[in-house]
Amino acid sequence: MGTTGHEPAPEPKYWHLRTVLLRAIDSEFATGEVIPNERELAARFGVARATLRQALDQLELEGRLVRRRGIGTLVAAPRTAVPVRPAEESWPGTEDAAWRIVGCTTAAPAPKLAEALGIPADEPVHTVRRVRSTGGQAVGTEVLHVPDSAVPHLPGFAADTGRGRSVLRQLQRLELAGESRAVELGVAEAEEARLLQRPPGTPVLVVTTQYAAGGRIAALAVSTYRADTCRLTFGETGLVEVAPVGAALSEVRTAS
Amino acid sequence: MGTTGHEPAPEPKYWHLRTVLLRAIDSEFATGEVIPNERELAARFGVARATLRQALDQLELEGRLVRRRGIGTLVAAPRTAVPVRPAEESWPGTEDAAWRIVGCTTAAPAPKLAEALGIPADEPVHTVRRVRSTGGQAVGTEVLHVPDSAVPHLPGFAADTGRGRSVLRQLQRLELAGESRAVELGVAEAEEARLLQRPPGTPVLVVTTQYAAGGRIAALAVSTYRADTCRLTFGETGLVEVAPVGAALSEVRTAS
Repeated sequence: MGTTGHEPAPEPKYWHLRTVLLRAIDSEFATGEVIPNERELAARFGVARATLRQALDQLELEGRLVRRRGIGTLVAAPRTAVPVRPAEESWPGTEDAAWRIVGCTTAAPAPKLAEALGIPADEPVHTVRRVRSTGGQAVGTEVLHVPDSAVPHLPGFAADTGRGRSVLRQLQRLELAGESRAVELGVAEAEEARLLQRPPGTPVLVVTTQYAAGGRIAALAVSTYRADTCRLTFGETGLVEVAPVGAALSEVRTAS
Repeated sequence: MGTTGHEPAPEPKYWHLRTVLLRAIDSEFATGEVIPNERELAARFGVARATLRQALDQLELEGRLVRRRGIGTLVAAPRTAVPVRPAEESWPGTEDAAWRIVGCTTAAPAPKLAEALGIPADEPVHTVRRVRSTGGQAVGTEVLHVPDSAVPHLPGFAADTGRGRSVLRQLQRLELAGESRAVELGVAEAEEARLLQRPPGTPVLVVTTQYAAGGRIAALAVSTYRADTCRLTFGETGLVEVAPVGAALSEVRTAS
């Protein structure tokens, strides 16, 4: 630590086996196929059952294998590609049927939120909550904060999801000057976990987006995506799909 | 699972405490500050030591707290912002002193790599390995695959890092037509772990980038960044730094 030299990192036995197994899965099995049982695998690779189980646990954790009771261990489906940055920059909610509004509240912001938005502590903020689904499965949640002064023409009477829709519509009338994003690893908080139907603490990719318009931050979105099933995609060359070359393809990562 | 309804997710006791602790840390302590010891914290929040320890373990795992022997538990430094997508799209290696070439090999590609690059199975591929450092600490690794036909004017004699530099220079003379990226969660493979000076299996953010030029994939990069210490940033509005509003700021994610 603290130096730039290359000290050898220890490679545990189960980890070596995990890598060997991963290559075997990549080359011999298709998605949804059942791999041989533990006894057969232990014999084939000449390892103890305990080591094998550790390697299988690791591959399950990585979303490469799925254990199904009464069936066995299957090769997991590849992660779902979730386009985060469309070809054209756009406001949230534009032409996107994947997102569903689940709530909207209006309140004075928490101090750090006011700071992040660059607004006075007493300016109301509209907070729209949305859920993103793919194939009937919730894969992402979003909290979108919009200062009242950015959307001054809201109908006063609309409440909750109706107000949420109004906030998005008002945003879409502004000229988007630019957006910046950060992606990092996080864990699902209670409300996010509930919407994703996963236990709190589930690993998520957290995407923070600032939308700029008229020389200010007009909206701030914090989205969380299930890290086990999602791959976020940004831009497209239009040549080929980025899909098959991610964390999954160790062959491409480690090929000499 | 499989429905879009909202079933309540269970919130374990330690998880609730973790969230309460996180808010206390955010509002009362600065980076590097030592928080009260376990006895004091357990008394303040009225919880058992075992529950408290579980919550502290979780916050350490999330990179929010750091335990230092003989000192105590400190508030961790925020994650390092790593700009992944510069304002202008560019070839890898352009004007970027953060990356250091650690090796270059030339060989026939593995079948999946040939497929991903859209080249014949027998076309040689140059593979440049690089390490990215921030403040003397390795934070990222990269494997950059470049088909020989994309860089036909390499000097034949250069080997290893010299050849790597030639590959990058040749790439930079091509006109970049576009790039597409995918970000997902992965684990450090043996060689990546060695370069990052972490144990194999360390969580990493895996960024796969396709560079297009002349109607083809001219380069394919797979980069891995330490998930505990890195936040990847994409584009800039130029208004404010995205930095302070990530996974760290639960206040902004959960504020009503």
